[in-house]
Amino acid sequence: MSQQDGTFPDIAPWASPAARTRIAEVAADLADLWGGLSADGVARTVEGALREHARQFDDEGIVLYAGTNAMSGAARRAAEAPVGGRPSMGWPGEKYQAGLDRLDLLEVLTPALVARLVGARFAEVRSHSATMANLAVYTALTEPGDTIAVLPERAGGHTSHHAAGAPGVRGLRVVELPYDVDAYDVDLDALPGFLRSERPRLVVIGASLLLFPHRIAAIKEVVSEAGASLLYDASHMAGLVAAGRFQRPLTEGADLLTFSTYKSFGGPPGGVIATDDAALAERTSDAVFPGLTANYDAGRLAPLAVTAAEILDDGGAYADRCVAAARSFASALAEEGFTVAGADRGFTDSHHVAVDVAALGGGRAAMARLAEAGVYLSAIGLPWQRDGEPDRGLRIGTQEVVRRGLGDADLRRVAALMADLLLRDTDPGPVREAVARIRRSSAGL
Amino acid sequence: MSQQDGTFPDIAPWASPAARTRIAEVAADLADLWGGLSADGVARTVEGALREHARQFDDEGIVLYAGTNAMSGAARRAAEAPVGGRPSMGWPGEKYQAGLDRLDLLEVLTPALVARLVGARFAEVRSHSATMANLAVYTALTEPGDTIAVLPERAGGHTSHHAAGAPGVRGLRVVELPYDVDAYDVDLDALPGFLRSERPRLVVIGASLLLFPHRIAAIKEVVSEAGASLLYDASHMAGLVAAGRFQRPLTEGADLLTFSTYKSFGGPPGGVIATDDAALAERTSDAVFPGLTANYDAGRLAPLAVTAAEILDDGGAYADRCVAAARSFASALAEEGFTVAGADRGFTDSHHVAVDVAALGGGRAAMARLAEAGVYLSAIGLPWQRDGEPDRGLRIGTQEVVRRGLGDADLRRVAALMADLLLRDTDPGPVREAVARIRRSSAGL
Repeated sequence: MSQQDGTFPDIAPWASPAARTRIAEVAADLADLWGGLSADGVARTVEGALREHARQFDDEGIVLYAGTNAMSGAARRAAEAPVGGRPSMGWPGEKYQAGLDRLDLLEVLTPALVARLVGARFAEVRSHSATMANLAVYTALTEPGDTIAVLPERAGGHTSHHAAGAPGVRGLRVVELPYDVDAYDVDLDALPGFLRSERPRLVVIGASLLLFPHRIAAIKEVVSEAGASLLYDASHMAGLVAAGRFQRPLTEGADLLTFSTYKSFGGPPGGVIATDDAALAERTSDAVFPGLTANYDAGRLAPLAVTAAEILDDGGAYADRCVAAARSFASALAEEGFTVAGADRGFTDSHHVAVDVAALGGGRAAMARLAEAGVYLSAIGLPWQRDGEPDRGLRIGTQEVVRRGLGDADLRRVAALMADLLLRDTDPGPVREAVARIRRSSAGL
Repeated sequence: MSQQDGTFPDIAPWASPAARTRIAEVAADLADLWGGLSADGVARTVEGALREHARQFDDEGIVLYAGTNAMSGAARRAAEAPVGGRPSMGWPGEKYQAGLDRLDLLEVLTPALVARLVGARFAEVRSHSATMANLAVYTALTEPGDTIAVLPERAGGHTSHHAAGAPGVRGLRVVELPYDVDAYDVDLDALPGFLRSERPRLVVIGASLLLFPHRIAAIKEVVSEAGASLLYDASHMAGLVAAGRFQRPLTEGADLLTFSTYKSFGGPPGGVIATDDAALAERTSDAVFPGLTANYDAGRLAPLAVTAAEILDDGGAYADRCVAAARSFASALAEEGFTVAGADRGFTDSHHVAVDVAALGGGRAAMARLAEAGVYLSAIGLPWQRDGEPDRGLRIGTQEVVRRGLGDADLRRVAALMADLLLRDTDPGPVREAVARIRRSSAGL
């Protein structure tokens, strides 16, 4: 390579001081590679980073982060086909491209399987992500300037429900639903008055932390009276919803269901929109293509179909194990001395667990401390958080540890190690070794 | 599997008759699988479809479709790491998730490499697609109700520039730029008056069929005077642009450059936004995250970095071969008797070739006929097409056949086979065998 242009560039001079510090550190590590760039050098460096990530995160870490999962072996094999770079635009029988007839099978089978799983008449599976699926719903159901009502961030309202995210792209006004902290749900008493005064076109429920089901039927009744539609974002709950183990949002009254296909669902990255209403299905489908996609990445459909079929086969057993693991892990954490949310209601009805660590320095500090020992999760806001208060909580999801084969005894041991780190201030080094031993001895994927 | 719910569902009752016919045909083929659904059955069916697609399309077909490519072996290996389901939200040093430090390397190296390639200060590489990259630009630079001016569809204006696509999601008014058919470019004489009367905030050039460079400097001067910004969508040209072989849009005056990363660029699916302007970079970056993405799919960055480094290494030679192949293929087609666009200007300055097949029944019919013989491309509108007239053209891109190692003699033989099919009405069967022989004997990927 002849071209040499000196120092590594500043990729984001507008980023925060913390980000710029870390970016500069990484850039410094890359100085030699950058100074003598070669394709082989880049390939080796990238492969090394991926290998090291896999060792640290997948093979020796315990992943309690709720927004991820590991695909099954069959789904991973199906994901390796390089068809993602083959755009397939339009329905089978009228595609813009020629020669893609064999992919028609994926485009017909996958939405049928996914719709069957979530008890819907229709499923649109071409969104690159649940964020995009939500944006497609906003596009189909609202006009710029309209209002939508969403859960507050401290109650698990996702970025793609808030003005900084997809609603801002559509030019929507976003208002926060009244929330009943004790019920872990929308405030049903305040809802009718709120809807009368704010007049949203769309109400969005379903959260990034959802310990107990929403009271959909009661919410739907008020939302319908106000002339609005109800969207349930099951990005986190999709695996449980598909297995019939948490709640069935469309059956209970939601007009539309969106979700991401990799978290508890356990498939490849991607987003789904499901509904029983043919008119809504058509409008949201048009918003996905041609609205938001040209090439939707057909490579995602094969592992999605395989994953959906696996859930049809034994998704119920998996979902039951995830919920049981969450309850027993929550108990173990409480016994260790943590403040676990929902204690008076059995902690959780889902695979999520929330721990209030405000007294331990807050969610971000606890997350970082646990990561030093190879336990990976995220901080999260909790419903009782004050405005402007940093995230009080740690969010835990059991969907990956169950797939990895960690049993009850393993999880009790992890709870004790978390207590060592956060309550007893133990050195992370030995804890990391104990964590890796637990992970290596696990019997699953 | 215990659940049985009978006949295969109607996945899109609102689709066109042609689509519904083909969907019903595929559904009928799936009836037995659907009646006795099992995960193994689905995995086998899906694997079979992918294998058959790979044989027919990749191994025995000649892919002249301009909107695709084959990744290098190194990029494919890098693409296999299952990190796509590991959301990595925010800059290194302030991510929402813990434990992803090894991915920081990808998030710093990849934008730096891509920016260097296209001669930009900044590159945003997290968009799932170029369509999304364009939507991020619209979000950053316009408000709902604003006007943007784009190329007409018959002059290669992409769906993501038109009201049915991403501009409709942003709620924009879309007007078509005046076009000079003889110049294969925006009508420079009409442009100033047009901009004064339509007052767009943004002008979009760069097309899905681009035989000759845009006169960017002249366009930019008028666009700037009108107070608008200029976006160049190099989705098709990115590999040539990166290698410095077509035009350098940012150097020549475009404010922003977007492109997809798999067509002539030759990498994984994805989209890029590049600019020299830090303020525009920040605004478009914010539109990508948190505006349009939560999990951007880190699995794409590794093969993108590898591909970018490969272009730095020998992208110039590859681009030269693509352009030379396009010119010699165009000559061969003209000698066979086809009406090839741009004959008076040497046919093309890019890897694209366009053939006017209106007299042969139009683009869609010719595309279907060629596909029967294993030659895959797409129909396209041509600038001299009348309003409402079906697509007159066939679009050809040489980016994949060059990578596959087809030489000049091979392409002359393909041109003759295309003439056999479309001009001499030969039976597709023997042509298909000849096509497969050419493909099997090619020396590249």
